[in-house]
Amino acid sequence: MNLERNAANYVPLTPISFLKRSAKVFGNKTAVIHGERQYNYRELMDRCVRLASALAGLGVGRGDTVAVLAPNVPAMLECHYGVPMLGAILNAINIRLDAETIGFILRHGEAKVFMVDREFAGLASRALADLQVKPHVVEIADPIATTSARVGGIEYESMLAGADPAFFCSYPQDEWDSIALNYTSGTTGDPKAVVYHHRGAYLNAMGNALAFGLRSDTVYLWTLPMFHCNGWSYTWAVTLAGGTHVCLRQVDPKQVFDLIARHRVTHMCGAPVVLNLLIHSPDRPARRFPHTVEIATGGASPPTAVIGNMEGMGFRVTHLYGLTETYGPSALCQWQDGWHQLEIDERTAKMARQGVPMPTIESIAVLDRVTDEPVPADGQALGELAIRGNTVMKGYFKNERATAEAFREGWFRSGDLAVVHPDGYAEIKDRAKDIIISGGENISTLEIEEVLYRHPDILEAAVVAKPDEKWGETPCAFVLLKPGAETLRPEDIIAWCRSRLAGFKVPRYIVFEALPKTSTGKVQKHLLRGRAKAL
Amino acid sequence: MNLERNAANYVPLTPISFLKRSAKVFGNKTAVIHGERQYNYRELMDRCVRLASALAGLGVGRGDTVAVLAPNVPAMLECHYGVPMLGAILNAINIRLDAETIGFILRHGEAKVFMVDREFAGLASRALADLQVKPHVVEIADPIATTSARVGGIEYESMLAGADPAFFCSYPQDEWDSIALNYTSGTTGDPKAVVYHHRGAYLNAMGNALAFGLRSDTVYLWTLPMFHCNGWSYTWAVTLAGGTHVCLRQVDPKQVFDLIARHRVTHMCGAPVVLNLLIHSPDRPARRFPHTVEIATGGASPPTAVIGNMEGMGFRVTHLYGLTETYGPSALCQWQDGWHQLEIDERTAKMARQGVPMPTIESIAVLDRVTDEPVPADGQALGELAIRGNTVMKGYFKNERATAEAFREGWFRSGDLAVVHPDGYAEIKDRAKDIIISGGENISTLEIEEVLYRHPDILEAAVVAKPDEKWGETPCAFVLLKPGAETLRPEDIIAWCRSRLAGFKVPRYIVFEALPKTSTGKVQKHLLRGRAKAL
Repeated sequence: MNLERNAANYVPLTPISFLKRSAKVFGNKTAVIHGERQYNYRELMDRCVRLASALAGLGVGRGDTVAVLAPNVPAMLECHYGVPMLGAILNAINIRLDAETIGFILRHGEAKVFMVDREFAGLASRALADLQVKPHVVEIADPIATTSARVGGIEYESMLAGADPAFFCSYPQDEWDSIALNYTSGTTGDPKAVVYHHRGAYLNAMGNALAFGLRSDTVYLWTLPMFHCNGWSYTWAVTLAGGTHVCLRQVDPKQVFDLIARHRVTHMCGAPVVLNLLIHSPDRPARRFPHTVEIATGGASPPTAVIGNMEGMGFRVTHLYGLTETYGPSALCQWQDGWHQLEIDERTAKMARQGVPMPTIESIAVLDRVTDEPVPADGQALGELAIRGNTVMKGYFKNERATAEAFREGWFRSGDLAVVHPDGYAEIKDRAKDIIISGGENISTLEIEEVLYRHPDILEAAVVAKPDEKWGETPCAFVLLKPGAETLRPEDIIAWCRSRLAGFKVPRYIVFEALPKTSTGKVQKHLLRGRAKAL
Repeated sequence: MNLERNAANYVPLTPISFLKRSAKVFGNKTAVIHGERQYNYRELMDRCVRLASALAGLGVGRGDTVAVLAPNVPAMLECHYGVPMLGAILNAINIRLDAETIGFILRHGEAKVFMVDREFAGLASRALADLQVKPHVVEIADPIATTSARVGGIEYESMLAGADPAFFCSYPQDEWDSIALNYTSGTTGDPKAVVYHHRGAYLNAMGNALAFGLRSDTVYLWTLPMFHCNGWSYTWAVTLAGGTHVCLRQVDPKQVFDLIARHRVTHMCGAPVVLNLLIHSPDRPARRFPHTVEIATGGASPPTAVIGNMEGMGFRVTHLYGLTETYGPSALCQWQDGWHQLEIDERTAKMARQGVPMPTIESIAVLDRVTDEPVPADGQALGELAIRGNTVMKGYFKNERATAEAFREGWFRSGDLAVVHPDGYAEIKDRAKDIIISGGENISTLEIEEVLYRHPDILEAAVVAKPDEKWGETPCAFVLLKPGAETLRPEDIIAWCRSRLAGFKVPRYIVFEALPKTSTGKVQKHLLRGRAKAL
């Protein structure tokens, strides 16, 4: 037989191909907009090739890590191509982390080069201070940035200017080669280092482009951080489509609305908190946009009010679900025929569900925690959401135990507890470690928190399990009231909950205090559990 | 390291996944429409599983071939899933072939099962007559078919009714496993058997869905034969998108227009000859469709008049280029910003070019036939169009010589001669074996034929090289006049050409006679070259 792979019929899947193609097909089309600066796909390609060349000059080679600490600036986007073009691995770091964690990441990820936007010079310097082996530092001096502290090292633009535009970019030797390292921000312990490969990056970009309807006339506004699962793969997907990337240093609502109008933005992404920011901004436009702006949201369910308000402005909301371990989106709440006829409450309740697999995810199941069998699709039975597919991570870098725990019996275990509705849509009820089991019944802390958040005087709320002699566990709520709010007694809040929740779900303990959070804003429920136990 | 493949993070790419997902995500959505019959994705999945089960019952297993001789009926679509679900290989046969060629294909492809639509019972019986080893025959008795001759064997619907709906469908063991066998219809010699793999089918479907903008509200009308490169992969792409397949036994313009209106068809494909059929039909609607219908065309360049007429009806035309060897489309004439401002002639001249690579094709180059280097992008230099990417065939089944000839130096050689325009778009000028070299100048026979076809009295025309003592070769035109056309003399035609072509391109010999064609309608230029030589 002579039907084997050859150079004509087999190319490792890699998102580098997207840029190469768009530079050819859409060479004169605007690829990147950043403030007043715009450049086309041919220039983007040229800049990425130069970046690869310059990094090679700094000694970066196949399998090496390049860390980047920057907001959504062109350099960050270019790293998504220039770094893999060397066979190197991109480690985009969350700019909201503390110096100690960033130091841990640089050490654990073995970064050879550390690229830093000057706004984060102080943070970067503190992170570098304790490192025995220091990476090469490259400074990103963004003219739009308001600060310009120095962290040392060569400046990004002059580095590109001096680089070789004819540098030979290599492709991965194997599509399983690593392309990115993304540290999860858990609520406890050291972050875990999720490893992506070229194949998954290629496929997730394809799936996202299909599911979100990206096209060559797409104008994508970067309201989602690129350091967040590589911008849910949109760093690659927008380039695949030949669309335009509109960079954005921070989600300032005025600027967001200005950019939507100025560049006729068609697509953007963001967590519900970003949607809320837009809704409550004084800069919110008085009338609907003249065109529909697609916005994908995830990380938490979009509440009814958020969906309604966003639609009122002219957005169309799509709810995605995913984890760092699945290259961002692995499920989407696929819109179905007939939903538009539903009342808003019924419709948004459907839209708030995590939904069904993305096109490149092979399967999502909700597995009984004892038997490992799929739970019945009755909207009631709780199990762990498990995922299988080509856009699931390779594993955790230098953490065999965590990798083995995450992959069991052919599934990636999400740690999220969910039900499956009769229409096959999954809905997450809680994190596995947060669920409360009271008298043998599961109680979703998310459900109680939702009720608490609806109270007009409550600013923040978190519910955890408190050990209980009779029931095993019972819900305990930590509540922070709004500044200037009427003084509430615990019994007021209990009464509020009682009229809105089944009796066994009503918190029996109410504690008024601020919630402890990680540097990325996640509530540290393990600390609250300790406090609840000690009450 | 523990970052290897496992069952959770690696699944062989296969279009079977598309059906599995759409059955889950779009279970209640109409998957297939055929006449008055409609059924949803859950039923399509069920029917395909039953088909796999029934075929297994006939002894079909991994690596076996299942041949199908049928128009675009549901059974043909179902074979695109049911057959691969067994690890078997689908061989969809062109219904316009002669019995002898079909017999060759069944023998060469080693079909274990031969599924035949009753309309083609006679043809199938003649093809089977000479076979030493006869495959199992399955009859497709389509209630819409006007004929109902018998060819023997079990009937498709009763076979499904008796099959196991809980049959366990296997996935490919390797994404490189073969999924389809497609025989090319060359103009000489035995057809070659192009082999596709699951990976390429998956990727080409993704690329087509992206490039053609397929979505879950897509209604795809099957005007393109599914036996033609598996319907250019749309058999799989439409299912990926969760769109609706509208089957069609034959391209009857009245029916096409009725179905577009009745089902609000959004997408369809067809060769320019199909477009012409619609344009010149007396059933052509008096006004534009109320919505835009996307139509992709390929196999030949769409002439200006065809594009203009189609647009007038409400179609938007996209020109694709490909070969059986590239799973159908490998290039598309990507629309660029600003083209809509061009005059129709200028615009359609741009649109008639073969263009740029599809999203899943890595590279298209036009290579100098001597040096193998890319020709300059000057719209003049002629070279062979070469293709590289994951949607290029595995090779030719049982034909190592042809495979080796097709794959040279890391490229699939298309056999088409093309130029590259300054904007990077490729344009085909002729088949390599048809080009005329006269006094050292290349003359495209397609260009002369185009001029001849514009003559109001000419029905058919073909131009070939005639050996010439002085010039080496010189163009010789074979012309068939329209019935009832004014009698033309050779000098009239030469004068017509002289006013429209450079002098050296004007045919010096004009022969009035019908053109010899293959059973699929391709002009047999090798026969004409013999006649020209003998003149």
